[in-house]
Amino acid sequence: MTTRADGRTPDQLRAVTIERGWSSQAEGSALISFGGTKVLCTASFTNGVPRWLTGKGKGWVTAEYAMLPRATNSRNDRESVKGRIGGRTHEISRLIGRALRAVVDTKALGENTIVIDCDVLQADGGTRTAAITGAYVALADAIEWGRRNKFIGQKAQVLRDSVSAISVGIIDGVPMLDLPYVEDVRAETDMNVVVTGSGKFVEVQGTAEGAPFDKAELDALLELALAGTAHLRGFQLAALEQAPAEVES
Amino acid sequence: MTTRADGRTPDQLRAVTIERGWSSQAEGSALISFGGTKVLCTASFTNGVPRWLTGKGKGWVTAEYAMLPRATNSRNDRESVKGRIGGRTHEISRLIGRALRAVVDTKALGENTIVIDCDVLQADGGTRTAAITGAYVALADAIEWGRRNKFIGQKAQVLRDSVSAISVGIIDGVPMLDLPYVEDVRAETDMNVVVTGSGKFVEVQGTAEGAPFDKAELDALLELALAGTAHLRGFQLAALEQAPAEVES
Amino acid sequence: MTTRADGRTPDQLRAVTIERGWSSQAEGSALISFGGTKVLCTASFTNGVPRWLTGKGKGWVTAEYAMLPRATNSRNDRESVKGRIGGRTHEISRLIGRALRAVVDTKALGENTIVIDCDVLQADGGTRTAAITGAYVALADAIEWGRRNKFIGQKAQVLRDSVSAISVGIIDGVPMLDLPYVEDVRAETDMNVVVTGSGKFVEVQGTAEGAPFDKAELDALLELALAGTAHLRGFQLAALEQAPAEVES
Amino acid sequence: MTTRADGRTPDQLRAVTIERGWSSQAEGSALISFGGTKVLCTASFTNGVPRWLTGKGKGWVTAEYAMLPRATNSRNDRESVKGRIGGRTHEISRLIGRALRAVVDTKALGENTIVIDCDVLQADGGTRTAAITGAYVALADAIEWGRRNKFIGQKAQVLRDSVSAISVGIIDGVPMLDLPYVEDVRAETDMNVVVTGSGKFVEVQGTAEGAPFDKAELDALLELALAGTAHLRGFQLAALEQAPAEVES
Amino acid sequence: MTTRADGRTPDQLRAVTIERGWSSQAEGSALISFGGTKVLCTASFTNGVPRWLTGKGKGWVTAEYAMLPRATNSRNDRESVKGRIGGRTHEISRLIGRALRAVVDTKALGENTIVIDCDVLQADGGTRTAAITGAYVALADAIEWGRRNKFIGQKAQVLRDSVSAISVGIIDGVPMLDLPYVEDVRAETDMNVVVTGSGKFVEVQGTAEGAPFDKAELDALLELALAGTAHLRGFQLAALEQAPAEVES
Amino acid sequence: MTTRADGRTPDQLRAVTIERGWSSQAEGSALISFGGTKVLCTASFTNGVPRWLTGKGKGWVTAEYAMLPRATNSRNDRESVKGRIGGRTHEISRLIGRALRAVVDTKALGENTIVIDCDVLQADGGTRTAAITGAYVALADAIEWGRRNKFIGQKAQVLRDSVSAISVGIIDGVPMLDLPYVEDVRAETDMNVVVTGSGKFVEVQGTAEGAPFDKAELDALLELALAGTAHLRGFQLAALEQAPAEVES
Repeated sequence: MTTRADGRTPDQLRAVTIERGWSSQAEGSALISFGGTKVLCTASFTNGVPRWLTGKGKGWVTAEYAMLPRATNSRNDRESVKGRIGGRTHEISRLIGRALRAVVDTKALGENTIVIDCDVLQADGGTRTAAITGAYVALADAIEWGRRNKFIGQKAQVLRDSVSAISVGIIDGVPMLDLPYVEDVRAETDMNVVVTGSGKFVEVQGTAEGAPFDKAELDALLELALAGTAHLRGFQLAALEQAPAEVES
Repeated sequence: MTTRADGRTPDQLRAVTIERGWSSQAEGSALISFGGTKVLCTASFTNGVPRWLTGKGKGWVTAEYAMLPRATNSRNDRESVKGRIGGRTHEISRLIGRALRAVVDTKALGENTIVIDCDVLQADGGTRTAAITGAYVALADAIEWGRRNKFIGQKAQVLRDSVSAISVGIIDGVPMLDLPYVEDVRAETDMNVVVTGSGKFVEVQGTAEGAPFDKAELDALLELALAGTAHLRGFQLAALEQAPAEVES
Repeated sequence: MTTRADGRTPDQLRAVTIERGWSSQAEGSALISFGGTKVLCTASFTNGVPRWLTGKGKGWVTAEYAMLPRATNSRNDRESVKGRIGGRTHEISRLIGRALRAVVDTKALGENTIVIDCDVLQADGGTRTAAITGAYVALADAIEWGRRNKFIGQKAQVLRDSVSAISVGIIDGVPMLDLPYVEDVRAETDMNVVVTGSGKFVEVQGTAEGAPFDKAELDALLELALAGTAHLRGFQLAALEQAPAEVES
Repeated sequence: MTTRADGRTPDQLRAVTIERGWSSQAEGSALISFGGTKVLCTASFTNGVPRWLTGKGKGWVTAEYAMLPRATNSRNDRESVKGRIGGRTHEISRLIGRALRAVVDTKALGENTIVIDCDVLQADGGTRTAAITGAYVALADAIEWGRRNKFIGQKAQVLRDSVSAISVGIIDGVPMLDLPYVEDVRAETDMNVVVTGSGKFVEVQGTAEGAPFDKAELDALLELALAGTAHLRGFQLAALEQAPAEVES
Repeated sequence: MTTRADGRTPDQLRAVTIERGWSSQAEGSALISFGGTKVLCTASFTNGVPRWLTGKGKGWVTAEYAMLPRATNSRNDRESVKGRIGGRTHEISRLIGRALRAVVDTKALGENTIVIDCDVLQADGGTRTAAITGAYVALADAIEWGRRNKFIGQKAQVLRDSVSAISVGIIDGVPMLDLPYVEDVRAETDMNVVVTGSGKFVEVQGTAEGAPFDKAELDALLELALAGTAHLRGFQLAALEQAPAEVES
Repeated sequence: MTTRADGRTPDQLRAVTIERGWSSQAEGSALISFGGTKVLCTASFTNGVPRWLTGKGKGWVTAEYAMLPRATNSRNDRESVKGRIGGRTHEISRLIGRALRAVVDTKALGENTIVIDCDVLQADGGTRTAAITGAYVALADAIEWGRRNKFIGQKAQVLRDSVSAISVGIIDGVPMLDLPYVEDVRAETDMNVVVTGSGKFVEVQGTAEGAPFDKAELDALLELALAGTAHLRGFQLAALEQAPAEVES
């Protein structure tokens, strides 16, 4: 079997750590790492919803993704300095938001808003998938905070399922799981897959970076992704079973 | 078999028209319609490449997508007036660019740049897929213009294949092809698929808008998309066989 | 008598076409062409007025002008990408708005807003004058839509008159009507004239591009413009007499 | 004869003062007042031209207009704070630039750039016409500075003529010269006229604010404007005959 | 004793003039000069406060600072043209606002807003200190205007004290007062000091431009600043004792 | 002696930790905490200088400060989303840059650029002083990196001294060191002091938030700050004595 530069087998995740409750300010938070990729996810809970949603008995969950200027190997100018947000940032923010909303029952959430911020402190490939995976943990804690503080009903089932995400790709013809930067730039096909705890797809985004791909390759990648996200589900559960330091209301 | 509001069967495209050479200014152009969706695609050819690519013997193909303010049922503010481009616009521009680059041999193109503009004049669902399908026709003509004007070698094979795109989705449990706006907003799963003339995938973007989807549903949608894009390939070929009015160099 | 490059006499308009009701989305619309110049004009009717006008019993009519990036012979960057609207765009949007408001009785319109969008799909000189001429047709239809949908009183005389516009200029000492791009760049004096159906001036904007001009030259240009706009009035009337496809409320 | 609120006859200018050389920093400057309207005009001379003009043996003259936030009766937000320049500002900047370029022989200027800044310190109608009239004085001094400092040939005739501007309008049916704010808002027709020292038109911009106007009204307004600008020419000459404090190179 | 390039002793101010009531539009105004530095300060009074302060029985005082493009020896691009406000502008605007608020009793002001605009017409060092010193005069007049027009109680003590500011610096080892531009660029340490009429500090901002400074140097600079601001207090009092032309309500 | 809410004496620092080499991407980095305030400082080294400095044989050091949206107790909108950088951010970025440049010999640095990014991950008062203190450590490592990689001469003394910073303030009449957020909002006078390792001032920024302050209060605050920064110097030295993981060139 192929061995990768970092010694993993093709179907192996990088080391995953989830530091739940990293922030003493946010209602929910997690510092997640997939190998050298480190993302700080915070969940901000506010009672009330944006004006366009008021009075509909439903809550709102949204996300913003960003990268520190020196998260990467060479420095990138800040988007605040450039005065505009790039297409990639927009795209990933929207993806994270959709992924989380797919497992949230906004009726059960009630007229409350949760904003998830995913800030990449260090980047080594797979930042969007680490962000989604960590964001779920922060989201779960923010919902618990809302419940403890009586903004959410005690028996409301706000989360319908868990959600995590992983990247897969084909390198030199071999389908591989969880690509670090060095593999990502070489991948012929690159795919990000968002999967629920029960193993269903929320989002499948596959792109031929080199040659177009066929159905068999697609199937192989999806199989890897399902196995990988099942593992991530385990890390999420383990993190959520620990008792984090409580944030005051 | 299910019949849709507009009388189509689930696996049927809307009426497709491609008015090649619509513009007398651009090196390549096509006004494409998928039912009520109308997109003006122009391809602008310039000799030379952006500074960061200079001297590498390769060309550059990029795309920009936008919508007129009253393309839709109610008016949207212009992005130029808002002073910033929205995430959706960015996302689609990037998608079109990747789709076209997937079939272009940039070495054969030489140090030339082709910018594709896809402006939605009227929107009724599937604007990004119509844009990709029309953009290919405009691109092909711009490449021919470059050849006639000696910027591209007479025998250079710039286009490796053709490319087209279609939307598919699951509505009330039924997989359907080429969704108009009324279906799009109701779809549980929504997917945009970009396929080469030889039937390989360039991009697969599936999103669960309602319940997450499983592998069987994904497979059914991809099958519909492959059949739909094979038809679109026919429309592209037919349009390119006609002689358009030549644009002067 | 002088003959022009395109075979016209100095006092002759280019071919004018007005495709009324081009859009199936807007309450009023017209695709107008003056020779190679093609402008899509849509009128969006909304009940209510901006906050600063609320409660005064008056309506509001405004206009926005823009050009597709490849409307012209070489591509221009999008204003949305540049993040700011240029002076020329601002200037023409304001001109179109003033021209239309000059023939609208805002009291009769009632507390309703009509936004006119004039998007230049192809440019060959005279885009602002074609925009005003086409916008009037779109405006008239949007007013009728408002009447049919009971937002405007059945007997209210909202339009006091019609309005159209044309460019005139002096080329090689000869006053000429309706300048295409090749004449426009050579004109010593360039004037845009907006005239009501009853032949009165709404706007006269004359600029010496080369030598300053005297009163006699000004008089000759205005005479040409009055004759030209009288013809345009005929095209507007003809377009409005046809029954367009109705847009649903 | 009609007497106006401020005691003037319809064909009379307000008090005009031109404080030449107001700035000790700029190569040319003038603080001009038309009654309560006060505009500081500075001309900045730099050797060299913008890149797009390099090597053509021609100079460049351009202008920027702006208003202090409390120049007017109530405060307006700064355009720098809003992050964008309004249409009116753009329009007037362009007008001033065209007016000045109409009397400059850019070949004689040589590859030098003059930027004119017209900042309205206090506004009471006619700011753009005061700006043009004062800008001419600043421009003339900047050209002299360029000559003294050997950037311009000693015998080069850079200025072909002088230029000034005035507003005229019809109020209660009476054509009037040089409108202060209270008259400006009531004018049925409003016109700004830019005229050379030899009495030819550089720019005629007439707008019907109320009822459209006819040829006879237009003629009456132009006659007033020609007389008014002839007077302004006198003030410019008088200012330029005085010896201003020299600015060091 | 050291004599400076302009003949002053180290502890001497430049010529100070305060033209109170320069503007006929603003509720308070002063054109202040410190030698070649000239700043137009206007105070705009409006009844009511920003939304976030409503109903708290307190007023609001804020300031904006800006420089004309050719206030300085060479021209700077306008911040409105650049589309963003620079750090230096922001910093000084905030400083002026804090300085003024330090002497205002916002309860006594009541729910009224005063916006101070400080526009540098000509710059020769010390623009921020001249701005604060002049702004106090404009502020005092705006408060009187509010009192005359019954927006402020007749006996309310809105101003707790006066406030002025001066720059000090160490040049060639010698502490000096009120630096013009030529000294400012050479200063090893540069300090701006804001002082109340009763001689207490509102703001002390000292920066080592060259070598770091010690406590003895800091003390010497503060002593100079206290003497200088005591003089400025005299100029403010003198200006406020004159009767300015009243601005109509 | 007064005891504070967190149990400290007035002259005591909060717990300080410096995690040197936190980032595996940047040439120098430190994650610093002052109590609940956590700032990630990275130093990016690039060979070469900005265009305006080229060929002068000097290097360039600059800094950018920013805060994550949920660093604080309630969420703030991102500056990238707002499209502009706030005054506070600008002000602090400039302060950090000046503080670092005060101890750098740019001649010894040679034509190299170091950009310091200070991103506040969690905020509890004193973020700018923690940023300066941590930035010095990151800077020192980036300089060493430059030396190891031969961009800087082996014997060049780039750092003339160390630099750190601390906040001081007067609360209920008592001068206190290193204010957390709850004290900061209550302080009558608030001061940030930047001090070199040898105990000289680089920057003194004192502001009366409530009543103005006198010389005696200023002296007491400066004394506290000198003692506090002497302690911080110890933490910096300790961090720099440890061997961090090397970053590859």
